Amino acid sequence: MSLREKLYKIIFETDTKAGRNFDIFLLWAILISVVLVMLDSVPSYAIRYKDLFLNLEWILTIIFTIEYLSRIWISPKPIKYIFSFWGLVDLLSIVPTYLSLLISGYHYLLIIRIFRLLRVFRVLKLARFTSETSVLVEALVASSYKISIFLTAVLTIVTFLGTLMYVIEGGETGFTSIPQSIYWAIVTVTTVGYGDMVPNSVLGKFISSFAMIIGYAILAVPTGIVTMEMSKVSGKTKTCIHCNSKNSLNANYCDHCGAKFPED
Amino acid sequence: MSLREKLYKIIFETDTKAGRNFDIFLLWAILISVVLVMLDSVPSYAIRYKDLFLNLEWILTIIFTIEYLSRIWISPKPIKYIFSFWGLVDLLSIVPTYLSLLISGYHYLLIIRIFRLLRVFRVLKLARFTSETSVLVEALVASSYKISIFLTAVLTIVTFLGTLMYVIEGGETGFTSIPQSIYWAIVTVTTVGYGDMVPNSVLGKFISSFAMIIGYAILAVPTGIVTMEMSKVSGKTKTCIHCNSKNSLNANYCDHCGAKFPED
Amino acid sequence: MSLREKLYKIIFETDTKAGRNFDIFLLWAILISVVLVMLDSVPSYAIRYKDLFLNLEWILTIIFTIEYLSRIWISPKPIKYIFSFWGLVDLLSIVPTYLSLLISGYHYLLIIRIFRLLRVFRVLKLARFTSETSVLVEALVASSYKISIFLTAVLTIVTFLGTLMYVIEGGETGFTSIPQSIYWAIVTVTTVGYGDMVPNSVLGKFISSFAMIIGYAILAVPTGIVTMEMSKVSGKTKTCIHCNSKNSLNANYCDHCGAKFPED
Amino acid sequence: MSLREKLYKIIFETDTKAGRNFDIFLLWAILISVVLVMLDSVPSYAIRYKDLFLNLEWILTIIFTIEYLSRIWISPKPIKYIFSFWGLVDLLSIVPTYLSLLISGYHYLLIIRIFRLLRVFRVLKLARFTSETSVLVEALVASSYKISIFLTAVLTIVTFLGTLMYVIEGGETGFTSIPQSIYWAIVTVTTVGYGDMVPNSVLGKFISSFAMIIGYAILAVPTGIVTMEMSKVSGKTKTCIHCNSKNSLNANYCDHCGAKFPED
Repeated sequence: MSLREKLYKIIFETDTKAGRNFDIFLLWAILISVVLVMLDSVPSYAIRYKDLFLNLEWILTIIFTIEYLSRIWISPKPIKYIFSFWGLVDLLSIVPTYLSLLISGYHYLLIIRIFRLLRVFRVLKLARFTSETSVLVEALVASSYKISIFLTAVLTIVTFLGTLMYVIEGGETGFTSIPQSIYWAIVTVTTVGYGDMVPNSVLGKFISSFAMIIGYAILAVPTGIVTMEMSKVSGKTKTCIHCNSKNSLNANYCDHCGAKFPED
Repeated sequence: MSLREKLYKIIFETDTKAGRNFDIFLLWAILISVVLVMLDSVPSYAIRYKDLFLNLEWILTIIFTIEYLSRIWISPKPIKYIFSFWGLVDLLSIVPTYLSLLISGYHYLLIIRIFRLLRVFRVLKLARFTSETSVLVEALVASSYKISIFLTAVLTIVTFLGTLMYVIEGGETGFTSIPQSIYWAIVTVTTVGYGDMVPNSVLGKFISSFAMIIGYAILAVPTGIVTMEMSKVSGKTKTCIHCNSKNSLNANYCDHCGAKFPED
Repeated sequence: MSLREKLYKIIFETDTKAGRNFDIFLLWAILISVVLVMLDSVPSYAIRYKDLFLNLEWILTIIFTIEYLSRIWISPKPIKYIFSFWGLVDLLSIVPTYLSLLISGYHYLLIIRIFRLLRVFRVLKLARFTSETSVLVEALVASSYKISIFLTAVLTIVTFLGTLMYVIEGGETGFTSIPQSIYWAIVTVTTVGYGDMVPNSVLGKFISSFAMIIGYAILAVPTGIVTMEMSKVSGKTKTCIHCNSKNSLNANYCDHCGAKFPED
Repeated sequence: MSLREKLYKIIFETDTKAGRNFDIFLLWAILISVVLVMLDSVPSYAIRYKDLFLNLEWILTIIFTIEYLSRIWISPKPIKYIFSFWGLVDLLSIVPTYLSLLISGYHYLLIIRIFRLLRVFRVLKLARFTSETSVLVEALVASSYKISIFLTAVLTIVTFLGTLMYVIEGGETGFTSIPQSIYWAIVTVTTVGYGDMVPNSVLGKFISSFAMIIGYAILAVPTGIVTMEMSKVSGKTKTCIHCNSKNSLNANYCDHCGAKFPED
């Protein structure tokens, strides 16, 4: 087995011990680097631990660079990988650090490194993306059209509500424009309720009480949608061709006669 | 085909290319005009882009006027259309701009133009009002009586809660009257929690803690109602007259024998 | 038919025109009197409309007194009625006004009149307490034990959370005692979030972020309970003794053979 | 029956009158001692009722100590009990009070006594841990993997959202670092909405409006998960070996033929 084949097994497969260890190592490297980006944004930490953060960052960047180059090398179609979603995420994870050598004092570009967090999902996907997740995703996709109708309705409600409150409150306590008032309406209907803008007039309080109770009642709608779709997806069955008994979609063997289902 | 017939096809039907393009054009015109109304309410924008907003407004108003007049012209029953819901919404969308020529300085009347937003629903309805929406609407209608009982209960709870807190807090920190305290109770029970009025006394805090946990538990009720109704509506079936197998209400063909269902 | 019998029909029954009108009249009288109590608590209104409020209050009190005395008179067991729940509510609705003649300047006792609101339910119950409500009530009763387990768990969580935050925040920004911190924990876990007490320390913010996400996830539990119980109650059936087909619990006639079900 | 056997019956069993009374007595002692810890943390009470609190604390500690020693004595395997979960909780409940004699002025260690609250669950478990609870626990366990996927997704969303807002708001109104902004994102997405940090810029308000509506829609997911799992658990059946009819998992007797199910 050549080095390239060995590397392929380690990086892309998880059923060997080395592959599993590599995944765990990578997971920790990603999580540490993300925490680093976060802590580096805290002014007091950024000054006190300047050198520690810089050194760790370079160590992690070099690790990620080696990983990136290895992936290009062992990939059967390197060009395709480079321009794939994960290829671009991998590139984006290392470029800002190198760029910081050339251009100085650009704080915000370094924040792009937060996209490294996405790479956690690639590692997790290889390790244990099971049928559980697909039920979640399938239910969300199945209900996406119903949810978008619901969101359109919510957006229409908050637009009218915001406009109404703009007219009623008339510039007081932050209701200075329609977009501002719509922002208030969204904060209210979603029950977030910051309190940075609150109605002052009696009529304004009456209208917003009404809005809250309405919001309370329609909160039930997306829940109802997702629950229903989830039950549907989870309730789907496939029929065993040997004994005609019904099995869950995720079954590998018929639970009645034990026959193996053909793989998808 | 006369001009009137052509216009009818464009305005009222969506299966021709022209009709579809007209819908998309109208949708954008409506959305732009609504955004215009919003931005015009922001004091700084209203001053800086005064001329741009005025010109755009007149262009859109003229487009909507032409559309309105066309609809009257091609409508088989013009009088019925004019006094229909959509006819009045269409009229309301153009009248404020013309009125602004006659009377000057009436800022708030122009806000009526926000009702143009409603016209989005007419356009969308023609385009893709599918059976998905009807499940939502049917479930809401079916559960409307249960929800109204629930709302009555909630209103009773907040009335007693507000009165109790008015007595306990005794005018402190905003609990100056019963309606004011009921407003607080609604803000609390719906978990909005602005924080503009908060209990100060120990007893007040105890009562409101109790109210929050109760609110937390009864939040479950409307959700349960809507979910149940949605499952019911979605679980309704019709029986194929050829093979007696059950099909979902939205099926056009029997999924067992392929026979076509008669249209509703 | 004697006057007493006539009155009985009007007050206790709703299938005559007079009975129905009496109910509607009473409903309005109750609602007006409750609104009156509310408005009377607003200082500015209480001064401006002093005489109007006083006159209206006496008119309504006299109406309710006549109704109360009539109920005693026509009741087959007057003593039982007087000490029944509704009898006491009726008494409580009129006593404060008469007491205000004897003792002056006791503002808060008058607020007891808010209990008149309860009488709305008696009127509504006679009019349209249908099977819909019983599904709601039955589901709540059936799930009451599960909900009480859930509430015990929530109370335990907020106690530990509050104690933890009291130790962490150490008296700062309102976390001055354990009960105070438990109040904060309840405000947070129920997602009310007034903002009158917020964590200041880094550790405090971390713990409360954790608490919010936990609260977010367990918000699902009571909803799941109520939805499940509601489906169960709503799914219960009774079997027709003539044709053995299943009918919903609320059915009066078998939907298959049309046989009447015996009344409960 | 020896004293040890008698004590065993009283402490560990609930079917005798003495055992039941012991449980109720213990429950009250625990609740009182927890309330004591809470009230002792309120500065004004701690000063005013110093002696009362101290005396009560010692009485309760001595009761708990006797209980602890009795449990060790009557336990068939004393060492195992001492190092079991409940043994450690019992020890932790009495140690702080004795330690306070040796070391003075350590306020916070005394708060460990709040762990006595856990002992309520042991008492309640003996008394009425029924199948109801197991449905709740089983549903939570069954859905724990789905919920952890959901939480991972939520954590990813709030990380990106917080980072984005940190860049947009740029240090204003509290968005001073990424962890701080993530805290804000959690407060917002969970709809807690303290209002201690609110977006100030137009873009920031737009992004957070978006975040709230997204949060509103995904609030539905954990509810859907738990409801579905609860229905599954509650819908599980076991089959009677005598008549083949299906019974609920909690049934002790077949509801069709009355045969007793074998105990688990």
